[in-house]
Amino acid sequence: MDVKTLSESVCRGDIPALAKAITLLESKRSDQRDDALTLLSTLMPNSGKSIRLGMSGAPGVGKSTLIEALGLTLITMGYKVAVLAIDPSSPLSGGSILGDRIRMEKLANHPKAFIRPSPSQGTLGGTARHTMEAIIACEAAGFNFIIIETVGIGQSEVLAASMVDLFLYLHLPGSGDDIQGIKRGILELADMVAITKADGESLAAAHLAKAQLEQSLHLSKPDETPAVYLTSAQLKSGVTELATAVVEATNKRKQNGSFASKRQEQLGICLRNEIAFLFADLLSTKNPITHKLGQLEAQVKAGKVAPMLAAKEFVAELLK
Amino acid sequence: MDVKTLSESVCRGDIPALAKAITLLESKRSDQRDDALTLLSTLMPNSGKSIRLGMSGAPGVGKSTLIEALGLTLITMGYKVAVLAIDPSSPLSGGSILGDRIRMEKLANHPKAFIRPSPSQGTLGGTARHTMEAIIACEAAGFNFIIIETVGIGQSEVLAASMVDLFLYLHLPGSGDDIQGIKRGILELADMVAITKADGESLAAAHLAKAQLEQSLHLSKPDETPAVYLTSAQLKSGVTELATAVVEATNKRKQNGSFASKRQEQLGICLRNEIAFLFADLLSTKNPITHKLGQLEAQVKAGKVAPMLAAKEFVAELLK
Repeated sequence: MDVKTLSESVCRGDIPALAKAITLLESKRSDQRDDALTLLSTLMPNSGKSIRLGMSGAPGVGKSTLIEALGLTLITMGYKVAVLAIDPSSPLSGGSILGDRIRMEKLANHPKAFIRPSPSQGTLGGTARHTMEAIIACEAAGFNFIIIETVGIGQSEVLAASMVDLFLYLHLPGSGDDIQGIKRGILELADMVAITKADGESLAAAHLAKAQLEQSLHLSKPDETPAVYLTSAQLKSGVTELATAVVEATNKRKQNGSFASKRQEQLGICLRNEIAFLFADLLSTKNPITHKLGQLEAQVKAGKVAPMLAAKEFVAELLK
Repeated sequence: MDVKTLSESVCRGDIPALAKAITLLESKRSDQRDDALTLLSTLMPNSGKSIRLGMSGAPGVGKSTLIEALGLTLITMGYKVAVLAIDPSSPLSGGSILGDRIRMEKLANHPKAFIRPSPSQGTLGGTARHTMEAIIACEAAGFNFIIIETVGIGQSEVLAASMVDLFLYLHLPGSGDDIQGIKRGILELADMVAITKADGESLAAAHLAKAQLEQSLHLSKPDETPAVYLTSAQLKSGVTELATAVVEATNKRKQNGSFASKRQEQLGICLRNEIAFLFADLLSTKNPITHKLGQLEAQVKAGKVAPMLAAKEFVAELLK
């Protein structure tokens, strides 16, 4: 299939074409990158009209379960939902043991949903590199609610936050989170918080955690304090409220202009990140520049010059 | 104090001078970087003669407690111990709430120990950027056992692994770890595993976890299966065995040559990382290159060109 046909199929909402398009965008083959960029250019004008929601929480918090419940609720509200993952947890072998498509079976099989697992290779940065491109492809295919799922603490959330309109942090009371994790910077990125598994014997702990979180969020973010929601995927409670809250928060931001200005800013971040990736690509291929690098590297490895000094010399040479 | 005097003081083992030297190496002020590089060059010849150990584990695993116990044990074995942290957990506010110096009070106050918390700002990469330089400074000051402490899942461990001789992963049975975390790639980086809090009511669970981990590690790394140790900081058990195992594993690697070859390889990685940082620095200062970048950025933000295409144009221009 040529790029033009592929692009047209994506824009008609053809799911296999969308999957194929994202595979092309994620391709590491340099001879495919020009096609990928052409594809991206044709998809861009049809993108942008979605709510982009980041969702993060520690392993075991019940993330897949809540994403599935939230996704199905959003579909009943009229949305088409795509779930993309940034999962840096396995730097060497890549990917989770249990795939998202298995953990979210109902959502995965819904005709108005699309679930794309994280590419199963590379570094966190490399994994996130093409996430914005996948967002654009999903939007062009008619998905108007994009969930970016991240796992872990810290850097993957910072990357995700640079791509989404709103960031939702999931918290399970009584998990390791409470000890040290909850106070960490992750909450600073959150626009709202959902407490998971707020049911049965855990309900009292959930209410307590809600009160504590609200207090600490009020202290750290007095101007725009993130709201805290109690949810239970088991009881199917709190999920509709959460979905409505996300949509309402987005509408409010669209009205006051912060939605558009944040998206503009994110385009700038995307540009700078991509430049850094291209530069890294350049240093990993054979060319006159990397010939000089090889010479310096030999000196460094022989202990003749400190790596930081050699780096400085190399960059000076590059810009000469 | 001029750089030469500072360097001499560090090499005499003067602790305040060492702290000052690391502050200079970490400085973000561009007018201090030349001094920092000069300092580094004078320290380099006195560095390298240590065991560098990475230690990682999820929050709540008892990392500080075990590092302190291990550090004190290593001191009784004749080592001088430095602890450096790579802590990306708080990308915005930076740093842990409880500092390492407070959590490891005994070790922090020992004359043969030096504890340096993570710089309280910047990204993960930025935090790790100067860790290798801090290692060199500590070694020049006579510290011959360097512990690099990381927190989190994934990327910070990959960075730490690129700087250390051995990587020790801490595991607490019954924590959130068991559910999904333990199967993740972090174990692929581990050269050995320590189970923490193996005492009292947790002892049976610890033994079970040890057996399970040994089995799964044997499957994933049949050639060089990491050993699993039971430790209890409370009972002070297993710590001496762990310290001895680290030293013995290092000696074995020194004999078979893999110690030296890994260090060489790490110098190459350090060179490439530093080049990437210098390039990022370049793009964040005012110069003819960033003038062109500013023009492209305006077009990207106005939605006239996809950020990935603009990035390609920029890099092509840069190399012209």
